[in-house]
Amino acid sequence: TPREENNVESSSVCAAEAANTIPASDTAPAGFLGNLLVVPMDGSHWVGIKAIAEEMGRRGHKVTVVIPEISVRMGPGKHYETVTFPVPYDKAHLDFVMAVHKDVLRKSTQSFIQNIKAKYSQIMRITGFIHTTAESLLFNDSLISHLAQQNFDAVLTDPMIPSGSLIARKLGLPTINLLRGIPCSLDMKSAGCPSPPSYVPRFLTKYSHVMNFKERTVNTLVALLEPLLCRLMYWYFDQIAYRFLGEEVGVAEVLSESAIWLLRMDFTLEFPRPIMPNVVLVGGINCNVRNPLPEVILCSWLSGEHGFVVFTLGTMVSDLPEEITSVLLEAFRQIPQKVIWRYTGKVPDRVPENVKFMTWVPQNDLLAHSGARAFITHAGSHGLFEGLCHAVPMLMMPLGGDQPDNAERLASRNAGLVLDITTISTESLLQGLNAVINDTRYKENMKKLSALHKDRPVDPLDLSVYWTEHVMRHKGAKHLRWAGRGLNVLQYFSLDVIALLATVVLVFVILLVKCLKLFIRKVGRKRKQE
Amino acid sequence: TPREENNVESSSVCAAEAANTIPASDTAPAGFLGNLLVVPMDGSHWVGIKAIAEEMGRRGHKVTVVIPEISVRMGPGKHYETVTFPVPYDKAHLDFVMAVHKDVLRKSTQSFIQNIKAKYSQIMRITGFIHTTAESLLFNDSLISHLAQQNFDAVLTDPMIPSGSLIARKLGLPTINLLRGIPCSLDMKSAGCPSPPSYVPRFLTKYSHVMNFKERTVNTLVALLEPLLCRLMYWYFDQIAYRFLGEEVGVAEVLSESAIWLLRMDFTLEFPRPIMPNVVLVGGINCNVRNPLPEVILCSWLSGEHGFVVFTLGTMVSDLPEEITSVLLEAFRQIPQKVIWRYTGKVPDRVPENVKFMTWVPQNDLLAHSGARAFITHAGSHGLFEGLCHAVPMLMMPLGGDQPDNAERLASRNAGLVLDITTISTESLLQGLNAVINDTRYKENMKKLSALHKDRPVDPLDLSVYWTEHVMRHKGAKHLRWAGRGLNVLQYFSLDVIALLATVVLVFVILLVKCLKLFIRKVGRKRKQE
Repeated sequence: TPREENNVESSSVCAAEAANTIPASDTAPAGFLGNLLVVPMDGSHWVGIKAIAEEMGRRGHKVTVVIPEISVRMGPGKHYETVTFPVPYDKAHLDFVMAVHKDVLRKSTQSFIQNIKAKYSQIMRITGFIHTTAESLLFNDSLISHLAQQNFDAVLTDPMIPSGSLIARKLGLPTINLLRGIPCSLDMKSAGCPSPPSYVPRFLTKYSHVMNFKERTVNTLVALLEPLLCRLMYWYFDQIAYRFLGEEVGVAEVLSESAIWLLRMDFTLEFPRPIMPNVVLVGGINCNVRNPLPEVILCSWLSGEHGFVVFTLGTMVSDLPEEITSVLLEAFRQIPQKVIWRYTGKVPDRVPENVKFMTWVPQNDLLAHSGARAFITHAGSHGLFEGLCHAVPMLMMPLGGDQPDNAERLASRNAGLVLDITTISTESLLQGLNAVINDTRYKENMKKLSALHKDRPVDPLDLSVYWTEHVMRHKGAKHLRWAGRGLNVLQYFSLDVIALLATVVLVFVILLVKCLKLFIRKVGRKRKQE
Repeated sequence: TPREENNVESSSVCAAEAANTIPASDTAPAGFLGNLLVVPMDGSHWVGIKAIAEEMGRRGHKVTVVIPEISVRMGPGKHYETVTFPVPYDKAHLDFVMAVHKDVLRKSTQSFIQNIKAKYSQIMRITGFIHTTAESLLFNDSLISHLAQQNFDAVLTDPMIPSGSLIARKLGLPTINLLRGIPCSLDMKSAGCPSPPSYVPRFLTKYSHVMNFKERTVNTLVALLEPLLCRLMYWYFDQIAYRFLGEEVGVAEVLSESAIWLLRMDFTLEFPRPIMPNVVLVGGINCNVRNPLPEVILCSWLSGEHGFVVFTLGTMVSDLPEEITSVLLEAFRQIPQKVIWRYTGKVPDRVPENVKFMTWVPQNDLLAHSGARAFITHAGSHGLFEGLCHAVPMLMMPLGGDQPDNAERLASRNAGLVLDITTISTESLLQGLNAVINDTRYKENMKKLSALHKDRPVDPLDLSVYWTEHVMRHKGAKHLRWAGRGLNVLQYFSLDVIALLATVVLVFVILLVKCLKLFIRKVGRKRKQE
């Protein structure tokens, strides 16, 4: 009968299903191609953002990067489009702003007052420049309305300069942040990561996570001053936010809405601290972003038996005061290694044969070469992670920002040495170079640290791209956002609840004491009456 | 000349290197095969541990699992060895201990006092059983010294019962913990994760992360009671620890030395909270641990057009009081779906045609089948994650432990409904089944949650194996361990520093006031003299 046939058929389908291997679970998300807006920061901050933008584009997403007409190093790429916006300054002014970093190096030859003045003028020039650039972007109405029409899925930005975060809020888009950290801990505060000053060392203190009472006191004081520092750093941006968004909302509140925080941080160097589930650690993001080395350097400079030393002081410092340069050259003259020096200033006379000046160096590719013996660096986070990735011992000359802390972290692991560039001598440099190159302990420690740093389940660039796509797929990551945002300080620390409980206990104790007194008095009276 | 030739040769080597593609960075760790000791817990806790043990063995590591001779479900596997130890009880006693769970279900027909008695006797019987098993393992000297000679690299364990953690300490081995969580938050406390009661809801409260003042007060009270609960839960194990280790160290301190915490937790369900870097989230670890379904079930029970309902109440409850069973059967008789019911008790009379009793069900494989329409569950964490993984809406009947909280979490996302099994009626069950099966909102919400749950960079089982191997490769994960362990409560909350700062401010204010008073008095006198 047809019925029976049907049954047989269904049964054989069953049998086939039963015999079949288990159907693969769809853990891997379906192919999704989206539309990403990128608002980057200049200088070394550009490196990681560019890496993500390129990789997102390579995977088929539409990626639009918004950059000013004039910049230090931001520019077009293979896999993303750029949209430029006009700025009211020219390249000469940009060079002038960048040159301030050199002035600060003249510490030893200047008076204390001159130093303070140089530092102050440096900060004012740079912040003025940052604000001008941000306003040129945010108040470019035609650009902003053009961006509003592009149906972006998300914004990738470095919130240290919160222009991208403000655009995201205006356009109602979720934000992915990539950053090293904000000095006043605004990143941790906005993401909701508790930072107990008892074991989370603060910026600039150079402390580790184990502190004695004095250190904890200083650390707590710095922690208490952080909100003030945040105010100072962002008061002008708060004004920009009011004007741009047309609502009474500041930078801190805008940042606390971020979907994902990609932090260029790694516990091989940093000290363990609490983080929230939307904080993803991607320290070493550009370790595997590599290009072949130019043949000319490779053959003339890297193939010697003694290897070579890489020397860069970052994007911001491209040349040095003459007196420092000559001290350094004198030391380099006395070592057998070749020295590749990133230097854009006037090439001095009498350069030793083993020193090569280059206006730009492929730093990560050089460090990845097996001949790299030492890395002389300002201990900026990118250089630090690149040296760590390729296990090259370091001689560190921190200049400012997070660099002194970075240098201290690595030095405390005995994988490098710290020198003060403003008081450097040929002897101290020679001594330092000799130690990191010839004392095998530095190399050994560096190798162990490097192995630990690289032993993680997902490459940091892939992880960054993954979470960027995750946010685009799900239109945010609301399920990862902490509820503490809605609480004021009293509520957050449960001080209101503690006050209530303390009051209840106090009232109870008072009543108890009164009752006891009454009781004792009564008993006393009774006894008297007896 | 030979020299020139040499040069040419070296240059051509260089050229070859330059032309070459970039050498691959060794991000992937080198092949490492180690030796892992596994000390599991019984019941549903066994599922995740077994999955990791099997996968570690499959990858070529030597895996030794230590289990008691008599257990509910622990046993041998394909890829690991088992070592059994004798216990002073038999299978009948084990069944007797497990049977207590059934008594607790008779709530509606018992008085309050009877309920409390049942609950108390349940707890006493189970804890007595746990302590006996632990002592049989730890004080089996020949077994412990046998284990000490095996050169293990690490211990994988569920620290809810800390036998494995104590063995790890005795043998000087790093520990990987896999667990759902410890009710008194000892896991979070030991790992160093801050748990502000203002937005981290406590066990048993059923609160979300957004709480009003009353809820925050209750939550804070529960938080304040947690240390007491930990004492109660672990005081006997503290005694065992002293005896076994021969040092004055308790369970809390032993656990705080753990290398990695694999938490079966996921922020699709849980609320965002701070975690430390050695806490790895692996909720849904057994989602992809799958086997083909037996042909006999597949064809007779799963192929109907109306699909089927899976009904299990976990390892601990295998049969039910008769009055509840008949209520449930009456409801199942009235639905078109087939019902697969895990049930080991006496099969009742008059079982409807669409109900199949099975003494064991391949729960995850059944839920993965496209015919699964609903999952009636006690809302244990494994079942919850399996239902979530395969997007099956749930009807939840929590019995105890973390189950009421689990059920509330899922119900608050409108992906399931909660019923009280002790007061259940045929109508309420029918209503519930009708809602989760026929109201598409539940299925839709479940699908969204499921997609979010599965959208993560690494499969949780692979991630667990990765971190287990990481600990074995590096002989621990010391760089991830928090420094707060060494601090007492006053220091941790910086109360000593705050007291000092407050004193300084107070002294300063007092001095200022005194000076002002003196000054005013002097001025006053002068005026008088004038």
